[in-house]
Amino acid sequence: MKKVWGGRIKKAFDKDAEKFNASIDFDKRLFKYDILAGIAHTKALFKTKIITDEEKNKIIKGLKLLLKKENGIDWKKYEDVHSTVEIELTKLIGVLGKKLHTGRSRNDLIATDEKLYLKDEVKNIKKLLLKLLKTILELAKNNKKIYMPGYTHMQQAQIISVAHWFLCYFQKFKRDYELLKFIDQRIDFLPLGAGALAGSGFLLDRKYIAKELGFKNITENSMDTVSDRDFIIDFLNFTVITANHLSRFAEDVIILNSNEFSYIEIDDAFATGSSLMPNKKNPDIAELIRGKTGLFYGNLISILTMLKGLPMTYNKDMQEDKKPLFSSIDEIKNIIFITEKFLRSIKFNKEKLLFNIDKSYMYAVDIADFLVEKGIPFRDAHFLTGKLIAYCIEKKKSLKDLDENELKNISKYFDKDFIKSLKPEKSVNLKKTSGSTSEKEVNLQINNAARLIKNET
Amino acid sequence: MKKVWGGRIKKAFDKDAEKFNASIDFDKRLFKYDILAGIAHTKALFKTKIITDEEKNKIIKGLKLLLKKENGIDWKKYEDVHSTVEIELTKLIGVLGKKLHTGRSRNDLIATDEKLYLKDEVKNIKKLLLKLLKTILELAKNNKKIYMPGYTHMQQAQIISVAHWFLCYFQKFKRDYELLKFIDQRIDFLPLGAGALAGSGFLLDRKYIAKELGFKNITENSMDTVSDRDFIIDFLNFTVITANHLSRFAEDVIILNSNEFSYIEIDDAFATGSSLMPNKKNPDIAELIRGKTGLFYGNLISILTMLKGLPMTYNKDMQEDKKPLFSSIDEIKNIIFITEKFLRSIKFNKEKLLFNIDKSYMYAVDIADFLVEKGIPFRDAHFLTGKLIAYCIEKKKSLKDLDENELKNISKYFDKDFIKSLKPEKSVNLKKTSGSTSEKEVNLQINNAARLIKNET
Amino acid sequence: MKKVWGGRIKKAFDKDAEKFNASIDFDKRLFKYDILAGIAHTKALFKTKIITDEEKNKIIKGLKLLLKKENGIDWKKYEDVHSTVEIELTKLIGVLGKKLHTGRSRNDLIATDEKLYLKDEVKNIKKLLLKLLKTILELAKNNKKIYMPGYTHMQQAQIISVAHWFLCYFQKFKRDYELLKFIDQRIDFLPLGAGALAGSGFLLDRKYIAKELGFKNITENSMDTVSDRDFIIDFLNFTVITANHLSRFAEDVIILNSNEFSYIEIDDAFATGSSLMPNKKNPDIAELIRGKTGLFYGNLISILTMLKGLPMTYNKDMQEDKKPLFSSIDEIKNIIFITEKFLRSIKFNKEKLLFNIDKSYMYAVDIADFLVEKGIPFRDAHFLTGKLIAYCIEKKKSLKDLDENELKNISKYFDKDFIKSLKPEKSVNLKKTSGSTSEKEVNLQINNAARLIKNET
Amino acid sequence: MKKVWGGRIKKAFDKDAEKFNASIDFDKRLFKYDILAGIAHTKALFKTKIITDEEKNKIIKGLKLLLKKENGIDWKKYEDVHSTVEIELTKLIGVLGKKLHTGRSRNDLIATDEKLYLKDEVKNIKKLLLKLLKTILELAKNNKKIYMPGYTHMQQAQIISVAHWFLCYFQKFKRDYELLKFIDQRIDFLPLGAGALAGSGFLLDRKYIAKELGFKNITENSMDTVSDRDFIIDFLNFTVITANHLSRFAEDVIILNSNEFSYIEIDDAFATGSSLMPNKKNPDIAELIRGKTGLFYGNLISILTMLKGLPMTYNKDMQEDKKPLFSSIDEIKNIIFITEKFLRSIKFNKEKLLFNIDKSYMYAVDIADFLVEKGIPFRDAHFLTGKLIAYCIEKKKSLKDLDENELKNISKYFDKDFIKSLKPEKSVNLKKTSGSTSEKEVNLQINNAARLIKNET
Repeated sequence: MKKVWGGRIKKAFDKDAEKFNASIDFDKRLFKYDILAGIAHTKALFKTKIITDEEKNKIIKGLKLLLKKENGIDWKKYEDVHSTVEIELTKLIGVLGKKLHTGRSRNDLIATDEKLYLKDEVKNIKKLLLKLLKTILELAKNNKKIYMPGYTHMQQAQIISVAHWFLCYFQKFKRDYELLKFIDQRIDFLPLGAGALAGSGFLLDRKYIAKELGFKNITENSMDTVSDRDFIIDFLNFTVITANHLSRFAEDVIILNSNEFSYIEIDDAFATGSSLMPNKKNPDIAELIRGKTGLFYGNLISILTMLKGLPMTYNKDMQEDKKPLFSSIDEIKNIIFITEKFLRSIKFNKEKLLFNIDKSYMYAVDIADFLVEKGIPFRDAHFLTGKLIAYCIEKKKSLKDLDENELKNISKYFDKDFIKSLKPEKSVNLKKTSGSTSEKEVNLQINNAARLIKNET
Repeated sequence: MKKVWGGRIKKAFDKDAEKFNASIDFDKRLFKYDILAGIAHTKALFKTKIITDEEKNKIIKGLKLLLKKENGIDWKKYEDVHSTVEIELTKLIGVLGKKLHTGRSRNDLIATDEKLYLKDEVKNIKKLLLKLLKTILELAKNNKKIYMPGYTHMQQAQIISVAHWFLCYFQKFKRDYELLKFIDQRIDFLPLGAGALAGSGFLLDRKYIAKELGFKNITENSMDTVSDRDFIIDFLNFTVITANHLSRFAEDVIILNSNEFSYIEIDDAFATGSSLMPNKKNPDIAELIRGKTGLFYGNLISILTMLKGLPMTYNKDMQEDKKPLFSSIDEIKNIIFITEKFLRSIKFNKEKLLFNIDKSYMYAVDIADFLVEKGIPFRDAHFLTGKLIAYCIEKKKSLKDLDENELKNISKYFDKDFIKSLKPEKSVNLKKTSGSTSEKEVNLQINNAARLIKNET
Repeated sequence: MKKVWGGRIKKAFDKDAEKFNASIDFDKRLFKYDILAGIAHTKALFKTKIITDEEKNKIIKGLKLLLKKENGIDWKKYEDVHSTVEIELTKLIGVLGKKLHTGRSRNDLIATDEKLYLKDEVKNIKKLLLKLLKTILELAKNNKKIYMPGYTHMQQAQIISVAHWFLCYFQKFKRDYELLKFIDQRIDFLPLGAGALAGSGFLLDRKYIAKELGFKNITENSMDTVSDRDFIIDFLNFTVITANHLSRFAEDVIILNSNEFSYIEIDDAFATGSSLMPNKKNPDIAELIRGKTGLFYGNLISILTMLKGLPMTYNKDMQEDKKPLFSSIDEIKNIIFITEKFLRSIKFNKEKLLFNIDKSYMYAVDIADFLVEKGIPFRDAHFLTGKLIAYCIEKKKSLKDLDENELKNISKYFDKDFIKSLKPEKSVNLKKTSGSTSEKEVNLQINNAARLIKNET
Repeated sequence: MKKVWGGRIKKAFDKDAEKFNASIDFDKRLFKYDILAGIAHTKALFKTKIITDEEKNKIIKGLKLLLKKENGIDWKKYEDVHSTVEIELTKLIGVLGKKLHTGRSRNDLIATDEKLYLKDEVKNIKKLLLKLLKTILELAKNNKKIYMPGYTHMQQAQIISVAHWFLCYFQKFKRDYELLKFIDQRIDFLPLGAGALAGSGFLLDRKYIAKELGFKNITENSMDTVSDRDFIIDFLNFTVITANHLSRFAEDVIILNSNEFSYIEIDDAFATGSSLMPNKKNPDIAELIRGKTGLFYGNLISILTMLKGLPMTYNKDMQEDKKPLFSSIDEIKNIIFITEKFLRSIKFNKEKLLFNIDKSYMYAVDIADFLVEKGIPFRDAHFLTGKLIAYCIEKKKSLKDLDENELKNISKYFDKDFIKSLKPEKSVNLKKTSGSTSEKEVNLQINNAARLIKNET
């Protein structure tokens, strides 16, 4: 491999050590950004008169040419992306290429490459998230009049509209979107110009470089700049929260899709079969989304562990930041993208839902609330309704089957007509608070969601 | 234990299950916040006419009284903090106490308690962080004219001022401070009113409750509200980054304090001895700061694992959010607090530093830059300087020992006078870029830091 | 606080640093083991003639007396358990107490205390696991003739006996038990005698001390001894695997117990209600078991992070090993214990199971296998059976409803009589391989399980 | 992509879902093992007369041929390794290939492939570890007469021989080796024959298959078999402990190699330079070894998270077990291999070590022990020696500089001659306990180590 160091070190690098040390296998992904950083740096070198106008033009032309030759590079000859660019450039434009690295270090350069790359990917992920939010909003709009059991402890609790269930996830992914926007701002500080750790000996105009590369700000302390990987931790934090939300969504879908629930139907185009059991129709997509959660947690732990107790400033350990970062970027894009598509493939089974709601005891809180409105302390209303349901279970009756006598035996305040009148739609509309599952509140949520999407698009 | 549920469940809870299930041992820490939430809720119940003015006053009086009786409560009789408050209140004010829980659930209540508590602690942590930032700024100001080796790969690299080292950490903790401010905003959404999952059947004015409790906003979807613990993940993310920074600071201190480095001296008041070896003076405080990093990582993983794949909405698993949260709050306060105090106890050993810098090869980049200014391509300048140093090492000479002949043998461009003139102060001031270790840039950093602290105080 | 060091350090320890540094709050749990280690060490000191017979007797008497006074100790006066024992002993027996620490260090002592403690707890956990295995075996025996759907991808796949489901978990917990036995052997190396790091200056007979304390072996290298915490990682590895198994069992139970499945019924004594919804009967115990998984993962990560990159030998960071260890010990005992009790409280709902199996398509593999026996390549048999089921779903028919014509339309090899004859019992007994769900194989599993338990009891 | 399922599922799989779902990119690594499993399975099919002798021979011939064609396969056409093998086989031998999957499932097959693969890699890793142990032993033998400071709290504590330092790591890696041997046994249970979850409908002789494939045992319960990934967790547990040990070794090397310590010298063939600073000679190899620790921790967390709360039996989430497993296998091999080579490249700087030991206070315990032998209680001896050292530091004297008067002023028991006589060799040999750093004990350790290696080779 060709190196950009020497002079002090006299022996050839051991072949195995060289292979172990090289990062080119994965950091070549940063090729484009290394060249962009090189172009901006070259302009700054000219601005401070380290190189002439002509030299500047020649280097930049060489770098742009190199960018187009990405596919022809024999990567395995090189140690890392930076030496690839420098040496390939020198091949293209001659000895002048050796001036490219003036006043910079691989330490400030790699941080710059990584941030440029991450900024681009954050843009992509924002788009994917926004598309997911849009689809959820559409689905909420289309499912306002379908009702399903809402669960706590995986037990039927209260009736909700399917729209409300979708909007629950809208909120979660909205928070993810806002977190990502915040992180985007935190990345937006140019590292270049920090040198190896102490700053550069040439008066490079860092604000100018920042502007050239699309950074809003420059970092403030050179040692911090080359030792810092907070922007990666920040991003991985975003991925673990988002993946966590997706894992919960996937779990909901898998359960709702089980034979026993059968509340949703996954389109055949998004289900898989079994190599042994011809009867199976498996929700593999949802399972894989859920199964990938660990990957994001693991990648976060990898980086955090690597950085734990690292002394100032740059240490080679930090080379290990790339694989977890790249893996998490690729996979978060994958799962957001596929979730959006998958979501559009599921349908709620209205009849089965209605049937099951009808035989359930989910009107209990409505009945207890009714007693409260008659002046009974909530705790007592709760107790009486609980007794009523225990009676139903024992007698294998539904609430609506109970006659006047049975009701009054437990409490004179129970009202047969009220109980008979309970329907899913009525039940959800008995909810009054802001953010509840009532149609009115669901519509408000939909309006807010629509506004958010409009503003962000 | 006294329960707030019954009616439906006929058997007494198994004693072991009861013990296993109870959270009172740790959630009693939320007692004050449960009462504050109760007071605001009571006002809202009155506002929507579920209770009378008189009832409201009586309940609130009872709750305030209860707050003062915290120390007298026999906690082990209860399942959790909510039932403690409800049942103790009923003891104080009679049957009216049973109305407290009207229109709310433990699901929205616990999220409210946790957020109220966390908001208070975030305030405390912001103060501690600000104090740490202030101290670092002071130390930077006081160490502008002391120089030390800057390291990469734990090898002497370039000379920096001690002030620059301090300001490097200033940047890291500043980012932590900004992250915490952002998280503070993300917590600031009232859960109460979401009920068990579907909203409340009573028209509770959630914006009013939010104002009463000091929340800026209300949550938008009831299901999201009771299933969400993002605010805890957000906070734990803050702790892992901050702890990571502290671990790196601690590592620096431990190494700089080793007998071999001896660059800093820890005041006896912050060092410990050995029970066996009378010669030891150990940096236990720094080691413990570093050693606690794992605790924060672990707590984050605990919560993330717990929430992975949890279906909507509330599940009992979520009770396990408290121990990691409480532990991370306590310990992050501990380590920020002690770091600030500890920092003030360390002194830099100016003479040892000067002696070691003098015999080092850290002027190498300055010399290479000098060649570049003479028109030699950087890569060649780098190579020639490397050769010079290799020669010095072989001959066991320092750079300043070299005579004209030895220099010219390697390159005619080397200048004896320039090399002789190199001093720590000169070396740092040869750095030109914004954010570098030069005195001018360090002063700018100090001014920015001072402004930040002024604005935040 | 009273210290066991001094002489070299001249200033009093800063009060906050002292508090931060102290471990007594948690390491007092090791009090008994510190005393036992002290007794054995005293005997060794006598054996090598550092102390007289009389001194030995006096010290041991003092230590035994101290053990009984545990409850009377004012812990907060002390830094850690070792200084507590040494100073309290000196109070009891005078200046002679100062000889106790001769030839040992807190570094080898704490490792000894921890191992003694862990060895005891491993014994307790082995008993709990064995009891759980016994109960599972009993339940397998009692549920041989009840059948349930077996799931893959959370979809009904093939019929199994409930006994087989129990025996599946038997295997998992059996592996945990075997892992624990292995770990028990790995702990069994005495640290005492390693001194601070280099060994002791007195000829302490370590094999004798090991025998006195019940260790089978002694550690082989003094530096390794005081820097090593593998025994804790080993144990925490055991806890994460076991907790993982328990989380999967809990998930199964929660799903099987949902209203939609209703395959199992949890006894009221192990279910909880809702503070708001009187209709709820929640599987809190299972949820908490599942929810605690994260705690074990987190504790493992804490220790691993703490030990990452720690230089030789003892570093104060290692004080942070105790909280995760203690927490994981307590909670693994809790969840194994409660799982065993909880398990005994669940009943399978035979009728519901039969009803659901009957309307399912789980005989598909049996039918495909039937075709294979007629010479059709498996892949084609699989395809034909899949087609048959798709037809059933389209026509809303069960397999047994199909008439001759319908069958033959898809393949002439389908046999109406064979299909009609399929029953759960027949289906499981069509499985032939060792370890399958057939009654014969289940009986063999039960016999093996019984033998294991007999051998271990 | 070509599928091995169909019939039941009517629509073509969505292209994006297909891509998301496919595992061929990574599970093709198991190609060889899938074929070996196929051969053994074919033999068992013949044995139970599902296929004829001729069919068996043809299938096996086809499979063996396929193995040689690995490089020619167009992988991207397939979903996973199993369908690749089945479909490619059918291309080679015609319709008969469709019989291969008779009586097995991808669920038992993938577990078999993974175990076969892991067993092979465990063998490789055992060899690498053994080689590392051998090299450490050699280095211990060669460094018996070189002495270095032993550290606790990163402070000079007591003198040790360099051999003792090497043997410390010998112990750690020996434990890793023993753990790996244990895990090897735990993997050694054949999954094949478990079918999808319930066992196979054909009487496949699993013990025979096990023997064919080199497994010692067969799994005992079919559901456990297809739901189990403990063997992966076990292996990853091994990697985190081993990586942890390597990270500590790397940390030691990095510190000992710093300019300030300069106790070891890394051969130029294993050091790297800086792209900016010509003076640097960086220990990149050691840093990368340390930096990779996080990768192993992260991979473990990935798998643990993925398996948390997974219901019985196989779920698609489990496809995500491969990437972390493969990554950890590759990297653990890398770091053990390179550590062994790297280790051989370091030399201890005997002169610098002697010089630094001489000016240190590491004889303190020897002096305190000397007082104890004169009958002074250890605690007092410790205090007096501490005072002596504090005096030296204040007066900037070494212990050997002190005159009779100065000694007696602090305690009459101090003996000038004894202090003067202290040398590194004497100091280590004053240690008496088994496992200490004395020459005698180091020799014993070396003998034990040599025996272990002989037995395992």
